[in-house]
Order: sequence, then structure tokens, then C-alpha cells
Amino acid sequence: MINQDSIVALATPSGAGAIAIIRISGSDAITIGDSVFKSIKNKDLTKQKTHTLHLGHIVDDSKTLDEVLVSVFKGPNSYTGENTIEISCHGSTYIQQQIIQLLLRKGCRMADAGEFTLRAFLNGKLDLSQAEAVADLISSDNEASHQIAMQQMRGGFSNEIAKLREELLNFASLIELELDFAEEDVEFADRTQFHELLNRIEFVLKRLIDSFAVGNVIKNGIPVAIVGEPNVGKSTLLNALLNEERAIVSDIAGTTRDTIEDVLVIGGIGFRFIDTAGIRETKDVVESIGIKKTFEKIEQAQVVIFLFDGFKFQVSGSEYIVEIEKVKNKYPLKPILVVINKVDLLSENEIQTINEKLETLNLKLLKISAKEKIGVDELKNELLSFVNTGALRNNETIVTNTRHYDSLLKALDEIQKVKYGLETNLSSDLIALDIREALYQFGLITGQVSNDELLGNIFANFCIGK
Amino acid sequence: MINQDSIVALATPSGAGAIAIIRISGSDAITIGDSVFKSIKNKDLTKQKTHTLHLGHIVDDSKTLDEVLVSVFKGPNSYTGENTIEISCHGSTYIQQQIIQLLLRKGCRMADAGEFTLRAFLNGKLDLSQAEAVADLISSDNEASHQIAMQQMRGGFSNEIAKLREELLNFASLIELELDFAEEDVEFADRTQFHELLNRIEFVLKRLIDSFAVGNVIKNGIPVAIVGEPNVGKSTLLNALLNEERAIVSDIAGTTRDTIEDVLVIGGIGFRFIDTAGIRETKDVVESIGIKKTFEKIEQAQVVIFLFDGFKFQVSGSEYIVEIEKVKNKYPLKPILVVINKVDLLSENEIQTINEKLETLNLKLLKISAKEKIGVDELKNELLSFVNTGALRNNETIVTNTRHYDSLLKALDEIQKVKYGLETNLSSDLIALDIREALYQFGLITGQVSNDELLGNIFANFCIGK
Repeated sequence: MINQDSIVALATPSGAGAIAIIRISGSDAITIGDSVFKSIKNKDLTKQKTHTLHLGHIVDDSKTLDEVLVSVFKGPNSYTGENTIEISCHGSTYIQQQIIQLLLRKGCRMADAGEFTLRAFLNGKLDLSQAEAVADLISSDNEASHQIAMQQMRGGFSNEIAKLREELLNFASLIELELDFAEEDVEFADRTQFHELLNRIEFVLKRLIDSFAVGNVIKNGIPVAIVGEPNVGKSTLLNALLNEERAIVSDIAGTTRDTIEDVLVIGGIGFRFIDTAGIRETKDVVESIGIKKTFEKIEQAQVVIFLFDGFKFQVSGSEYIVEIEKVKNKYPLKPILVVINKVDLLSENEIQTINEKLETLNLKLLKISAKEKIGVDELKNELLSFVNTGALRNNETIVTNTRHYDSLLKALDEIQKVKYGLETNLSSDLIALDIREALYQFGLITGQVSNDELLGNIFANFCIGK
Repeated sequence: MINQDSIVALATPSGAGAIAIIRISGSDAITIGDSVFKSIKNKDLTKQKTHTLHLGHIVDDSKTLDEVLVSVFKGPNSYTGENTIEISCHGSTYIQQQIIQLLLRKGCRMADAGEFTLRAFLNGKLDLSQAEAVADLISSDNEASHQIAMQQMRGGFSNEIAKLREELLNFASLIELELDFAEEDVEFADRTQFHELLNRIEFVLKRLIDSFAVGNVIKNGIPVAIVGEPNVGKSTLLNALLNEERAIVSDIAGTTRDTIEDVLVIGGIGFRFIDTAGIRETKDVVESIGIKKTFEKIEQAQVVIFLFDGFKFQVSGSEYIVEIEKVKNKYPLKPILVVINKVDLLSENEIQTINEKLETLNLKLLKISAKEKIGVDELKNELLSFVNTGALRNNETIVTNTRHYDSLLKALDEIQKVKYGLETNLSSDLIALDIREALYQFGLITGQVSNDELLGNIFANFCIGK
């Protein structure tokens, strides 16, 4: 543990609440805390045990700023690994500011974004991927992203990488040993076993890399393009989907549909609904720009929903089918849902006719009434079926971080070079070089290898106070 | 301490931050906390000492919701006086909701607004005026309101009332003793001493009642009416006043001029600037409604600022003076400041002419340039001079609460009745009745006398979680 200056920040959300927490960490944190704290029992904070709580007042000379509870954590038994105190004060913004300003005068400095967690990393309390998971955890807003962040914070991902690294290190040392005996042309590393190991590592890396497709959409919400004309019932549909989840959404301050704009949590997973215009043929320049944009949005989407008004479908059905086929041909692998809305206004016969018209498309067809909440649950189940929740359910490691994904891709590349080297009898020194590079990429993920720029980039995305 | 159900609430502001605090209080708080907490050292929370902190996980069956720190407080050594735990979790709203929902399933119920403080009062940890000060403290947004709330929370006001009550009780018991010996016509209570005491109580009550004038404006901001035509520089002036205080104001989230609309903190005291139109004679009906409104605003204001454009004053000066005199005659006791703006555009001679024109008014005259920040500090000092900060400086008790003010007025009324009774040789039993009523009013302030409706009204104004 290095002798660190003491940093201070508000750790709770800004604004007024019942209480607020001000956190100080650093070698002198407890001494500084003691200099502004008057215990009701005349306790000296510096003489208290770690993990204890003390009632008293924050005083600025003779002026009492607040009655507070102070938590004492002694390094290394703290979040940062350093001496830490947390002041639990009344939640007035005036009081928060007064206490923080007093602490600044007493020798603290304002913490940078993520600096508490950076220190935890530098002091070996967390590895880098665990530290990154802390930020993910704080920003998690649904069950799936929460579960992945939690798994990563608890070391699931690090363990997976550490295991690969260890096995590879074993072989690396054997290969490098061969270099010492280069003239004798011995092989310490069993080539068959080594090949098997590389295959296993390749398999694990590929699985982790593949998991990013799921992880990324879970982290950012699964993009769903809704293609439909105005008045087809897009808003009503979104409200119907939202309505069922109201219990979750409306309990959380600030997460109304206005602010997160069409991000809905369905079955614990976030879906991002992207509104698009239709894609019918036109000679109008302006409209054809609209069509281009629709295609762009469809391209970005993971799932496409064609939403039609059942009533209008009877008239313009064949035009709509042309539209669908256009998208289907352009993106043959993209899942498409055809959703006929307002079925409550149709007769059995009319529905039967629609069914027949769409049969040839061989696409999943859903008949709903967003207004009457008919078929909404079926639509939810369909949407969830596009998410590979198997890995989630099995609590497997899922990669969500682009930086990690990048390192995994590079590591895989190196591993494949090593494999090729083995197969083509490349000299041990060159193979050793590629192994080192793979090990380096693993190290970047866990932070065994790091530099200021890397750390700066990572922790700048944290909130202040964490 | 009564056996209480366990209540739970988020104690930190809603929204995402580094950490959030969830508070549980009640007989079973620690047992319930233990049922969802898995300590990293396998500790049993129910067996831990009070005022200790424990690291572990909140688990919902096999699912881990978060890594948390749990504070244990054993009743009566807690804020509420009951067993209490505080869970310091990661600040994601998703996590907060998940943990609270888990605790509700485990037998807690959601706390009502102010219910933690209500329990603190019911368990004798605070008297009623101290409990009310907690809410004031949380909403305090400047030095003066903070200082008054702090003084009251620490028992300053209660002590003052308690002293009066005790002295009065002494005499009450002597007077009531006389009732037991009514036939013998004795006087245990020395009438001269009693009269002196009543005078002292009257004096203190009057001082406290008077302090409400200051206390009320400090709590709500001092209303200052600005009378001035459009384009006279009102906005620029407010910005200039604000600008000087930017260090305080902009540091506090959400207190930009947009949200608190013309409430400025000057010298630690909040001022509420009320914009008004002018009050010149007119035959226009619409405009005369405007003039009526201006008068209403002036009536509500503590201070009136007449703001003129120095340039225009040279032309319309005499009309302006008529306006000022109208207000001065209507509200002879209301402090009026005459402020000539844009003096940077005037010559020495022109300023001299203005001086001479205004001389006869015998009002405080200030020459400023809001744009060039000339004379802004002098204006601030003038504004502060209208606030009786003496009591604040001397840390005297200042009454800010209408409920307290009301009880003090009633108590004063009773005391004066007692005095009158003494002077007119009223019988002891009638005097005793009035004394009891005064004591009752004192009791209402501190909560020695209370009922559900009173408590309901008071605590409904608290925030949830406190």
C-alpha cells in the first residue's frame, strides 16, 4: 500500500434525501476525520477499531455543522484498502457542501471519477475486470445486466481467464526451457498434449467471444426495429408492453418512458424499441431518404417487428407482403415477427384470410390487440425467445465489455498462430513469442498488465464517489 | 420501547449514485437483516455488537443481489431507539428495488414519511421540537436556516421552553396547594415573586414570539419586491447578485436560478426576489389590475426596491418620485431602497441632478451598474442590514415553526390572564386553570402533550426514509 493523499467525495446521489454519505480514503483519512469530529463520548477516531460506528458532530472550529454517524475502516480492511471513513450526515445539499468544503480545507482533495475503485485496484483489492464490473453493477437496470455484472464482480470472469492463463503459462515455461537447451534439440513440452490444450483454450475463447453477442445486447438493451405506418398502434403496443411491467418500472424514480424512451424491461431483459417508417416503393426523394434510414435501423436491430393494422391489411395486404419479402431477402438471417394489430375489430373469417395471405412467407405470425391487451404476452415470449438466456440461466461467464472482447479476439488470434506454429514445426522461440502475446492479452483483462492511459480510460467512466 | 413492526425505506436520495442506504428499524430488524445477509466471515448479525459494520452479500435464496456493508445498531442505542440495520449497497436503482422488495417479503413493511423520526420521538430519543428540526435541517439550504435548525435540533428551543415550564410548575404546585387549604386562606405562593416570574415569562415569550418574524423569513427566504419597468435591468441585477455567490450556488446540484427562481443566498441568508410591474397612474383597466397586483406584492414584501434606469430617470424622474411617494405613504414602516441602475452611462453632473431630485424623499439611495457590477456589494449589505442577524449571531433561540409560534401566542395569552387574575385577586382555582393551560401549550411544543392527529400532521411533511 502506497502512502496516498486523502480523497473525499459524496458517495450518495446528489440532491436532498434523509441522509447522505461522504467518503474519505487515504493514509490520513481517519486523522482528518478526527480533526473535524467531536464524538458524543469524547472518542478519538484514530483509536477506534475497524468496522465501527461513532455518533457525534462535525465541527468547524466552534460551529457545529451536523450531527453525524462516522464509520471507521482501517486499511487494508476497507473497500479501497486504505484507511477510510464514511460520514453519514443529514441529506441537505447545504450540509453536504459545508462538510466537503471543510474536509478540503483540512487537507483532503476532491476524488476523481472512480478514484476509490482505482485505489482498490491498485491496492490489490479487486482485479481490473472486477473493478469494471462495479461500474456495470451501479448502472445495471435490469435483472440480466445485474446478474452478469454481479458474476463478473465476484470474480467469475477473472477465474476463467486466470485458469487459461495458468495452463498456458505451464506450457510457456516448458517451451522456454527448450530454448535453454536449444542445441540439444529436446522437447520438454509434449506436443500432443500442448495441441490439446490449445484446442481447449481456443474453445473457451471462442465461447467467451461468442457470449459478447448476448452480453453486449443485454448490457445495452436488445435493439428491436418496429416497422409500421403511422397510426398502426406503435405507441399503444409499447404502452401495453410497458403496462405489464409497471410494477418494476414505475417504482424506480426517473425511469418513466419519457426519460428512457422506449427501453422496456421484459422478463428481466432490456429491449430497445426503435421506431421506423415503412419501406414501400416511392419516387419521392424525401421519402426514399426515410426508407434508407429504415433499412439502417433494421440492420442495427437484432429483431424486426412488422406491425400492421389488421383492418388495413385486408386492403393493402399484398403491398405489405412485398415489403416484408424485401427485408427478408436483404437480411435472411435476421429474425422477423409479423404482428397484426387490432384483431379485436376483425371477424374470424377476416383473420383466416390474413393467415392464408401470410402463410407463404413462412414467418412467425402474431395476432394481437395492443388496446385490448390481446396477444401481448405471446409477443413478449417471442421476443424473449430471441435472447439466448441459456448462458444466463447456467450462470456462465458472459462478456459484456468491448475492451475485454477486444483482448479476447487478440488472444484467440495469438493462440491460433501458436497452433499453426506447432503444426508447421515453427521454432520454439517464435512460438514462445506468440504465447507471451496471448498471456499479455489475458493480463490486460485482469489488470496484471496495465498502464496509466488504460486505467485513466477505464475509471473516467465511473461516477464520482465510487 | 414498544414492540414495533419493522419498517424499511431507502434513506438516500433516489436515483443512481455510488452507494445507497436502505434502513430497517423495528424489534426484528436485525433478525430480518440476518435472514437475507451472508457474511463473508459467516457472522450471525444477531450476535454482533451495536455500532459495528459487516461485509457480506444480500442473498435471495441462492441468488446474490449485491455485495454490501451492513451497520448494526441495537436499541435503544440507535436513531429510532429500536433495533436498526442500515444496508449500504451499490447505488443502482435496480439493486435498491430488489433489496427492498426482498425485505418486504421477509416481513418488513414500507416506512411512512418521517416514520423513523416519529419512532425516535415515541421512544424518547428526541422531543417533538427536536424531531421537527430534523426535517428543517434536511431542507435547509443556507447558513441561517441551517444554524437555526441545528440549534433547535440540539435542544436549544426545548431547553428554553423546559425552563419556563419548570418555573411555572413550581408556582402552579404552590397555588394548587393553596386550594387544599382553601378554607384557611393561606398563600404559599409569594405573590410578589410570582408576579416577577410572570413578568419574566412574559418577556421570554414575547422575545420568542418576536423572533418568529426573523425566523419565518429566514426559513422561507426574505421577500424583496422589485418595482421597476421592463428593461430597467432586473434580470441583470439578479444575475449580478447571483454571480457573486456562484461558488455556493453552482456547487449545489439543482439550485440553479431556473429551478429556485429568483431565490438568492446573500451572506448566508435566503432572499426571495419578487418581480413587479410599476405603479403609475393609468386609466387602462388591464394595467390597473397590474397595479393592484404590484401593491399586493409590495404588501407581502419585507423590503421594497425601486429600480430605475438612470438614463430614463432624467426624463421621467418626477413621475417616478410620485410612484415612490405613493408606496411610502401607503406603507410608512416598510423599508424602501431606491436603486438607480446603469450609472456607468451617466456623467458626474447627471448623477448629481438625480441625487438632488431624490433628496427630499429621505430614502436610502444606491447608484449601481448591474452590468458592470458597480455598487452590487453595497446593495447586498443594505439588504442584509434589514435582517436582524443579531439573534442569529448570538445563537439565540429563533422560532421558525408556525405551530410553535401558535402555541407561544396562546401561552402568552394565558400568562397574561394569570397576571390579570393576580392583579384582580382572582381565586386561586381559576388562576391555576390558566396556568395549566399555559403549561399545556408548552407541552404541545415539546411533545409532552401530543395526539395522533398532531403527530400525523407533523410527520407527514417529512421525507420517506427519515
